[in-house]
Amino acid sequence: MAAPGGRSEPPQLPEYSCSYMVSRPVYSELAFQQQHERRLQERKTLRESLAKCCSCSRKRAFGVLKTLVPILEWLPKYRVKEWLLSDVISGVSTGLVATLQGMAYALLAAVPVGYGLYSAFFPILTYFIFGTSRHISVGPFPVVSLMVGSVVLSMAPDEHFLVSSSNGTVLNTTMIDTAARDTARVLIASALTLLVGIIQLIFGGLQIGFIVRYLADPLVGGFTTAAAFQVLVSQLKIVLNVSTKNYNGVLSIIYTLVEIFQNIGDTNLADFTAGLLTIVVCMAVKELNDRFRHKIPVPIPIEVIVTIIATAISYGANLEKNYNAGIVKSIPRGFLPPELPPVSLFSEMLAASFSIAVVAYAIAVSVGKVYATKYDYTIDGNQESTGGKTQVAGIISAAIVMIAILALGKLLEPLQKSVLAAVVIANLKGMFMQLCDIPRLWRQNKIDAVIWVFTCIVSIILGLDLGLLAGLIFGLLTVVLRVQFPSWNGLGSIPSTDIYKSTKNYKNIEEPQGVKILRFSSPIFYGNVDGFKKCIKSTVGFDAIRVYNKRLKALRKIQKLIKSGQLRATKNGIISDAVSTNNAFEPDEDIEDLEELDIPTKEIEIQVDWNSELPVKVNVPKVPIHSLVLDCGAISFLDVVGVRSLRVIVKEFQRIDVNVYFASLQDYVIEKLEQCGFFDDNIRKDTFFLTVHDAILYLQNQVKSQEGQGSILETITLIQDCKDTLELIETELTEEELDVQDEAMRTLAS
Amino acid sequence: MAAPGGRSEPPQLPEYSCSYMVSRPVYSELAFQQQHERRLQERKTLRESLAKCCSCSRKRAFGVLKTLVPILEWLPKYRVKEWLLSDVISGVSTGLVATLQGMAYALLAAVPVGYGLYSAFFPILTYFIFGTSRHISVGPFPVVSLMVGSVVLSMAPDEHFLVSSSNGTVLNTTMIDTAARDTARVLIASALTLLVGIIQLIFGGLQIGFIVRYLADPLVGGFTTAAAFQVLVSQLKIVLNVSTKNYNGVLSIIYTLVEIFQNIGDTNLADFTAGLLTIVVCMAVKELNDRFRHKIPVPIPIEVIVTIIATAISYGANLEKNYNAGIVKSIPRGFLPPELPPVSLFSEMLAASFSIAVVAYAIAVSVGKVYATKYDYTIDGNQESTGGKTQVAGIISAAIVMIAILALGKLLEPLQKSVLAAVVIANLKGMFMQLCDIPRLWRQNKIDAVIWVFTCIVSIILGLDLGLLAGLIFGLLTVVLRVQFPSWNGLGSIPSTDIYKSTKNYKNIEEPQGVKILRFSSPIFYGNVDGFKKCIKSTVGFDAIRVYNKRLKALRKIQKLIKSGQLRATKNGIISDAVSTNNAFEPDEDIEDLEELDIPTKEIEIQVDWNSELPVKVNVPKVPIHSLVLDCGAISFLDVVGVRSLRVIVKEFQRIDVNVYFASLQDYVIEKLEQCGFFDDNIRKDTFFLTVHDAILYLQNQVKSQEGQGSILETITLIQDCKDTLELIETELTEEELDVQDEAMRTLAS
Repeated sequence: MAAPGGRSEPPQLPEYSCSYMVSRPVYSELAFQQQHERRLQERKTLRESLAKCCSCSRKRAFGVLKTLVPILEWLPKYRVKEWLLSDVISGVSTGLVATLQGMAYALLAAVPVGYGLYSAFFPILTYFIFGTSRHISVGPFPVVSLMVGSVVLSMAPDEHFLVSSSNGTVLNTTMIDTAARDTARVLIASALTLLVGIIQLIFGGLQIGFIVRYLADPLVGGFTTAAAFQVLVSQLKIVLNVSTKNYNGVLSIIYTLVEIFQNIGDTNLADFTAGLLTIVVCMAVKELNDRFRHKIPVPIPIEVIVTIIATAISYGANLEKNYNAGIVKSIPRGFLPPELPPVSLFSEMLAASFSIAVVAYAIAVSVGKVYATKYDYTIDGNQESTGGKTQVAGIISAAIVMIAILALGKLLEPLQKSVLAAVVIANLKGMFMQLCDIPRLWRQNKIDAVIWVFTCIVSIILGLDLGLLAGLIFGLLTVVLRVQFPSWNGLGSIPSTDIYKSTKNYKNIEEPQGVKILRFSSPIFYGNVDGFKKCIKSTVGFDAIRVYNKRLKALRKIQKLIKSGQLRATKNGIISDAVSTNNAFEPDEDIEDLEELDIPTKEIEIQVDWNSELPVKVNVPKVPIHSLVLDCGAISFLDVVGVRSLRVIVKEFQRIDVNVYFASLQDYVIEKLEQCGFFDDNIRKDTFFLTVHDAILYLQNQVKSQEGQGSILETITLIQDCKDTLELIETELTEEELDVQDEAMRTLAS
Repeated sequence: MAAPGGRSEPPQLPEYSCSYMVSRPVYSELAFQQQHERRLQERKTLRESLAKCCSCSRKRAFGVLKTLVPILEWLPKYRVKEWLLSDVISGVSTGLVATLQGMAYALLAAVPVGYGLYSAFFPILTYFIFGTSRHISVGPFPVVSLMVGSVVLSMAPDEHFLVSSSNGTVLNTTMIDTAARDTARVLIASALTLLVGIIQLIFGGLQIGFIVRYLADPLVGGFTTAAAFQVLVSQLKIVLNVSTKNYNGVLSIIYTLVEIFQNIGDTNLADFTAGLLTIVVCMAVKELNDRFRHKIPVPIPIEVIVTIIATAISYGANLEKNYNAGIVKSIPRGFLPPELPPVSLFSEMLAASFSIAVVAYAIAVSVGKVYATKYDYTIDGNQESTGGKTQVAGIISAAIVMIAILALGKLLEPLQKSVLAAVVIANLKGMFMQLCDIPRLWRQNKIDAVIWVFTCIVSIILGLDLGLLAGLIFGLLTVVLRVQFPSWNGLGSIPSTDIYKSTKNYKNIEEPQGVKILRFSSPIFYGNVDGFKKCIKSTVGFDAIRVYNKRLKALRKIQKLIKSGQLRATKNGIISDAVSTNNAFEPDEDIEDLEELDIPTKEIEIQVDWNSELPVKVNVPKVPIHSLVLDCGAISFLDVVGVRSLRVIVKEFQRIDVNVYFASLQDYVIEKLEQCGFFDDNIRKDTFFLTVHDAILYLQNQVKSQEGQGSILETITLIQDCKDTLELIETELTEEELDVQDEAMRTLAS
C-alpha cells in the first residue's frame, strides 16, 4: 500500500489516566511545543511558497491552508467505524472533568463559576480547528487562574462595592453589591487575560522560547511544587469556607495560611466534611485506578461520580439553608454575548500580566518536562487503550461542556464549592510527590538538589513570578560557581607509561624529579584567577612571591656584609671573614623588615645557589623544583584577566628560576593567548607542548644535558659590576612591577 | 646590623604625582586592602593571644594594642632628621588639594561648602592614628558625594523651604529660606553617611569582600568611566552656573544633560570663562608635569596656583556683584559642635544608603584596580622622590586643612564655585582616557569589550547602583554563555601518531574508517544539552532519531510486503516475488506516515543490512559509521540533566547499531556518572578509554577481528518468530521511551 501523501499522525493514544486532571497542563505543554513546531513549519512552508511564487499552484495554496488549519487535513481521513467509539468515551470523560475543573478554576480566578465553563469550552473548540495533536486537551492552568484571581481581587476588592442597605427595621448594615462586583471582576479578568495573550504572542514573535533551556529539571521540580503549594493554600480556604484578606506580593501565601489558621474557628463544618470526604475518596480511588490499571478497562471517573453524589446530597439536605454551606449558586444558562474587554485597564495591569504571561509559559513548559521525565506517563500513554484516536475526542468533550453551559448548569448549582476545591486538591498529589525526588537528587548531585529546594522556597516566599526569576538566576549562578571552583590535581605519571593521573587518587604515581604538574579543570577567567593562583601555590608547595622577597632580602644582607667587610667577594665566590654575628635565626614574621636596609644596592652583582647554606641568616624557602607543567586540556576559554594572570604567574616563577610549561592547550586557546599579547621574549611558544608527556620528556632531556655540563650554581659567587641605579621594592607585585623588579633581581642575582 | 623586631614599613614613597587628585581613591582602595589585611592580622593575633591566654604577658598585650593602633608602632621610630622635610612638602601639597577637593565635593553633596572641609579633615586625622600605610591619604569620593547629594536633594528640595518675603514696596515674592534648607540638608547628609558607614561595617563583618573577585577589569573600566561621566555632568552644571531640576533614578543623568542644554542661554559668562580657563590651564600643566616628570623635581601644584589666582581675581573684580557669579560665600570659621545625626531618618534612606555603601565599596576597589593595572602609576610611586616617608605627611595635610577651616576659610569665600568644579573636571581626564582601551579589548576578547561597553552604558542610563548590579549580572551571564556555547571539533589523527586534532584546522588529518571523534570543550549541563546534541548530529552527519524512525518505517513496509506475498522470507533472506509497485520514490517530508501501517508487527523478526539496497522504497539515511568516540577531556562537570542526556544519546545510537565510546574522562566525572545511575547492562564501563588513541586502537582491532569472521549482515534475512505484543511509536524519544522502543526495535530488527 502506498503511503498517503501529506501530513497525518501516527496512531497514538491520548493520555487518559488516573492523573488526567493534574496532567492537563501537559497537554498544553505539548500544545506549546506543537504550536512552536507548527509555527516553524508554517514559516518554512510560507518561505517555500514565497520562493516558488511563480510556480505556485492551487494545490500548494491548499497545502498551506491545510498547514494553517490542520482540521482540513485530518478530518476528511477520519475513520468513523474504527475511531468514533473510543473518541466518544474519551471525549465524554474529558468533558465532564473539564466542566468541574472550569468551575473550580473560576473560584481561583475570583469570577463567577459560570465563567469557568466558558474557559473550558472555547479553548477546546479552537484547538479542534487549529490544533494538530490528539494528545492535547487545552484548558486553564490552576496556578494561572490563581494569579489572575489575585490581580482581580486587588483591583476590585469587596470594599469597593459596599452599599448600605436599610432593610426595614434592621439596623443599617453595609452589604456587598455582588452583582456590580462580579461584573467589574469579570471585566478585569477578561482584560487581563487578553493582555496576557497579547504579551505571549509578542513572546512568540521574539522567539523567547530559548529561555526554556534554562529551566533545568531541578528548577522545574521546585517551581511546580511551590505552585502546587500555592494552589493548595487557596483551595484550603474554600474547603474550610474561611474568608481571609487578599494578600499580594512577597510572603502573601504565608500570611494567607496564617490567617486561615487564625480563623479556623469559622470553619463551616458542612463544607469541611464534604471537602475532606471528597479528597479522601478521590485519592483512594485514584490510587486504585493506578494500582489496577492493567486489570480495569477504564479508570473510574471518580471526580464525576463524587460531584454528582455531592450535588444530590447538597440539594436533598439543602445544605446552604441548613448549614450555611458555600455553594456554586448561579450558573448563567447559555452564552453571554461577547464583549471587548476594557482596554483602558491595560496600563494598570501591564506588570502583573507580564509576570502571568511568563509564569504561564514557564508552567506549560515545566509541567510538561516533569511529566516527560516520569516513566509512568509514557507507559500510560502507550498502554491505556481507552481514549480518542483524534481531535474528535476534543470536540466531544467540548460538546459535553456546552451541554453543561446550556442545560446542566442549573443542576450543578447546589454543588458545594468545597467539593470543587477538594477535587483540585486531590489532583495535586502528583506534584507534591516530587518532594520525594530530593533525596535522590541530593545523592546524585548536591548542587541540583540545592537548586530544587531554593527555587521551591523562594517561589513560595516571593510568589511564583519573582520566585521563578530568582530560581533562574540562582541556577545560572551555580553554573558560574561550578566553573569558578573546579577540581584540580597535582599529577604524576603511572610508572613507565605516558599516562598522568592525580597523585592523590592513585597509588604508585611517580612525580618526575624537580617538576610539578598541575591540571586545572576549568576555564580561567576573572572569577577564578585567585583560585587558580592558590591551586598553583598548593601544588608547588611554596609561594613564588614570598620566595622572591626572601631572596631579595638575603641578597641585601649579603651586600651589606660585603660592604662591612665581613664577606669578601672574589671571582671564585664569597669568602667569609668573620663568624656571622646574628646568632638568633631571624623569625619568620617580619618579612617586611627591609626598612633598615636601604643602603645603596646598585654596585654589586651576586650569584647565589639558593638551595645551599647561605652565609646570612634569612629563612629563604627552598624551591625543590626547576619546572612547573600546567596541563591545560580542560581550559575551554580565557578572558583578558585570565591571560594577564597567567603571564604574571609565569613571570613570578621565572624570577625564582622555575620555568613554567604548558601542555595540551586547545588551538583556539593558544590563538587567544596570542591576541592578548601573552607571548614576548621571556614567554615563548617553545614552552608549549602537545601533551604533558612531551613536556616531561623534554625536561628530562634538559636535565640530563645539564648534568653532563656540571652545575655552575654550586658555589656562591659574587661579581663586582656596576649597573644602573635601581631601587628594590617588596610588595605584592602587579605585572608591570614584575618587569621592573625582574630586571632588578636579574641585575643583582644572575 | 640586626633586623629590628616587630613590624614596620619598607621605605616606600607615597604616590605624589601629577594625578594626585584623581588618584586619591587609590589611596582608599589600598586602605581597604590594608584594612582587610590588618583585620586578618588582628584576628590571627587575637586568636593567638586567646590560645596562649595562660602565658599572656604585658608585652603581648602591648603587641595587640600596637596592631590595633599602629601609630604606637611606627611613631616612636620616626627619624625626624631624615624624613621630616619630605613629609612636610608632601603634606602641605596634599593638604591644599584636599581643601579644594573637600569644597568641590561638598557642592556635589548639596551641603554648604564648609562641610567639605570637615570631610577632608577628619578622615586624615583618623587614619593618622589607626592607619598602617603611608601611601594613603583618605578623603571623600566624588561619585559617592554625588550620590549623597541626589538623596539630599530629593529629601530636602528647594520647594520645601519657600517663604514669602514681603520686602517693603516690592511685590510679594517667594524666596528660599537657605539657612533652614542648609541645616536640613546637613542633617540628612550626616544621617545618610552614618547609615552608609554602619552598612559598610556590616559588610565587613559578613566578609562581603568576596564580591570583589567578580569586578572584572572590563566591568570596572566601564563603571568608572560612567561614574566620571556622572560627575562631569553634575560639575558642568556648576561650571555653567545653570540650574536644573533634581532628577532621580533611571535616566536622570540624561534628563539633567538635556535640561542643561535647554537652559544653556542662562549660562553665567563669568563663571563659564573662569571654569573653562581653569580646565584648560590645569589640563595643560598636568600634561607638562607628566611629560617632564623626570626633569622637574616637584610637579607644579597647578590646582593650588589656579585657585589662589581665581580667588584674587574674583575678590578684586567683585565678580559676584558685577557678574552675578556663583561664589563659595560662607565658610564657617572653626568647628561646629558635633551632633548625633537624626536616626529617625534611617528608615527612609535605607535603600539609598545600601546602594551608596555598595557603590562606595565597589569604587574603592575598582578605581584601585584601574590604577594598579596602569604602568604609570607604579612608576610614579617609585620614581618620584618628593613626598612623605610616613603617615606624618598625612597629619601635616590634616593640619593644612585645619588651618583652612580655622583661618583661611574666610579668604576662600570669593572663590567661584565654577573654578572648584573645573578643577574636578580637569582631573577626570584619566578616567575618560579609559575609552581608548575599548579597541584593544575588542581585538583581544570581544566579550570583554562588550562587558565594558554594557556596564558603562547601563551605569549611565540606570544610575551607578543599578548599573553596577546589571554589569555584574551581565558579566556572570557571559561566563554562562561562554560555557554554554563552547568550541567543539570533529577530530582526526595526525597520520601515524597518537595525536588527534581538529579536522577543520589541520591539513592531512586522517579520520579512522567508520569512526567519528568529537571533542566538546565544556561541561555538559542543563543549559547546553541541546547544543551538545546538535554538535553530535553535525559531527556524525545524520540524526540518530530520524534514522531509527526511517528504519522502523522500512521494516513495517517489508513486513507488509511479506504479508501480502510480494516478498518471501526464508532462512537465507528475502526473495522478492514482484517488482515493487511504488515507482515514485517516497518524498522526504512525510516522515510520520505510519498511520496507514498499523497492522500487527509482532510476528516477524527481520534482519536487515541497512546500508544495502532495500526492497522497499523508503529513504533510510545511510549510517557510514559504526562508532562514535567522545573526547571528554574538557568536560569539567556534569549535572543530572547532562548525565541523562548523555544516556539518551548513547541509547539512541545503540538503537541504530552505532556504539558510543568515551575517552579522557576525569576520574571525578566518572564518579558523577556512577552516582547518577549512568551505567547499566547496555552502557558499560568498557566503553570508557583513557585516551582517544586507546579507543581508536581498540576499535581498529575489533573491526579486524570482525572482518576475519565475515559479516553476517550482508544479506537481508527474515526469520519468523513470535514475540510479545508490541506497539511501535515514532516520536522524539525520552529516555524511558527509548528503553521500550529499543526493545521493540531489537525484537523486530535483530
